[in-house]
Amino acid sequence: MQLKEHEIIDDLQRDGLRIIQNDQWFKFGIDAVLLSYFCQTKKARHIIDLGTGTGIIALLLSSVYQQAQITGLEYQAEVADMAQRSVALNQLQARIAIITGDIAHWHDYLKAESADVVVSNPPYFKADCGVKNPNQFKLIARHEVACTLRDLFIAAYGVLKPGGEFFMVHRPDRLVDIIETARAKRLEPKLIQFVQPTIDKPPNLVLIKCVKFGRPELVFRAPLVVYKQNGQFSDEVFNIYNQAHLTAFNQHKTNE
Amino acid sequence: MQLKEHEIIDDLQRDGLRIIQNDQWFKFGIDAVLLSYFCQTKKARHIIDLGTGTGIIALLLSSVYQQAQITGLEYQAEVADMAQRSVALNQLQARIAIITGDIAHWHDYLKAESADVVVSNPPYFKADCGVKNPNQFKLIARHEVACTLRDLFIAAYGVLKPGGEFFMVHRPDRLVDIIETARAKRLEPKLIQFVQPTIDKPPNLVLIKCVKFGRPELVFRAPLVVYKQNGQFSDEVFNIYNQAHLTAFNQHKTNE
Repeated sequence: MQLKEHEIIDDLQRDGLRIIQNDQWFKFGIDAVLLSYFCQTKKARHIIDLGTGTGIIALLLSSVYQQAQITGLEYQAEVADMAQRSVALNQLQARIAIITGDIAHWHDYLKAESADVVVSNPPYFKADCGVKNPNQFKLIARHEVACTLRDLFIAAYGVLKPGGEFFMVHRPDRLVDIIETARAKRLEPKLIQFVQPTIDKPPNLVLIKCVKFGRPELVFRAPLVVYKQNGQFSDEVFNIYNQAHLTAFNQHKTNE
Repeated sequence: MQLKEHEIIDDLQRDGLRIIQNDQWFKFGIDAVLLSYFCQTKKARHIIDLGTGTGIIALLLSSVYQQAQITGLEYQAEVADMAQRSVALNQLQARIAIITGDIAHWHDYLKAESADVVVSNPPYFKADCGVKNPNQFKLIARHEVACTLRDLFIAAYGVLKPGGEFFMVHRPDRLVDIIETARAKRLEPKLIQFVQPTIDKPPNLVLIKCVKFGRPELVFRAPLVVYKQNGQFSDEVFNIYNQAHLTAFNQHKTNE
């Protein structure tokens, strides 16, 4: 495996999975790990990851859903190339396809109503908000310069089968935009879990599941608290990083 | 003070306030107390309570905002009469007016753009949902048979001045409806605080502040946890019941 400048290989400590990252661009964060935990579904034959970046979520989900075909769409060609090489590094080419393309033109690359599940860890900030990163790779990953919430929901709606599920991680301060857009695009919000740094801090992430043509019925989970007061990971998040939830979830599936 | 059958007088343990309640109808709950705590504003010259019921929120707010004029609108004549007698019991007739009327016809009783602040603890359930209470008083208080979310937001928008604030308590499972309606009616959600029974349970109430013509910018507070694991009130909720937050808030105002 030939690495490019600034690239490193990290061990995901899960099923021997490894990932290539570029330390000048962006590295995956807790949001990607929590989204892959939150994406609990019985429908995972074809999963599409919109804005796959390094491919982290596609890789993590491949270990949870061993029978699933996963497609990751990434706007930036260099980033998609790196994700593709991570797929090859793990010999997952038969199960994970990485496509370079623009979410706003999803129909050029993806078949309508072909997916059971869509996941996305999209840019969090509006194009006109916040301090923009001069690094193009970080800018496109963090700001809606290449993909707005509206583009994302239109694409998720387009590729999902009726009844298909859309799992997303985002920032709570965008919740009004998310809910308004979701309902307008017929992806009904069905499950929300907030993520708080500590029990006494406001949430800084929101995990949301929407269902295409779902009927209105919103359920909340108790918030996920990341750190104990002593600064260590909470038991829940420790278990998520250590895949205990996967074992629990797979047992749950087996018992049904 | 002549009481009617099934009526009792409860001491609110705040500024000597007392309230008449009918033990066959409904008694105020923690949601009313938390809403009066959540309603923190610098604009409280004229406050309108839409669906005032026993008048509990109007009474509590009268002790926080000593300079405010408060109008409570109540659909059920017998309930409004009881609220009116509670106002008289506290000799607050000069500051609190109770009007019998339908929120959907607010313009028959209330002046457009006359309020700085609107509060509401509306019926939580859709008219076609859940087990309906055969008791008419409870039914109308709990189900949207007399007032839908849409009616409520239209009325709040109508009576509020531009920039006016709308504080509401509701159930989290209606959050999608609330946010969609709020934005459609130009009452932008600006602040959300969830209320959880305990730290490991999902939220069962949501406190939300909207601003008429506000620009999109949503802030979350850390969730309010009602009970400690030992079943006692948390310090925060204990302080709310004991008015400590009012002192703290008034000090905050004085220091500005």
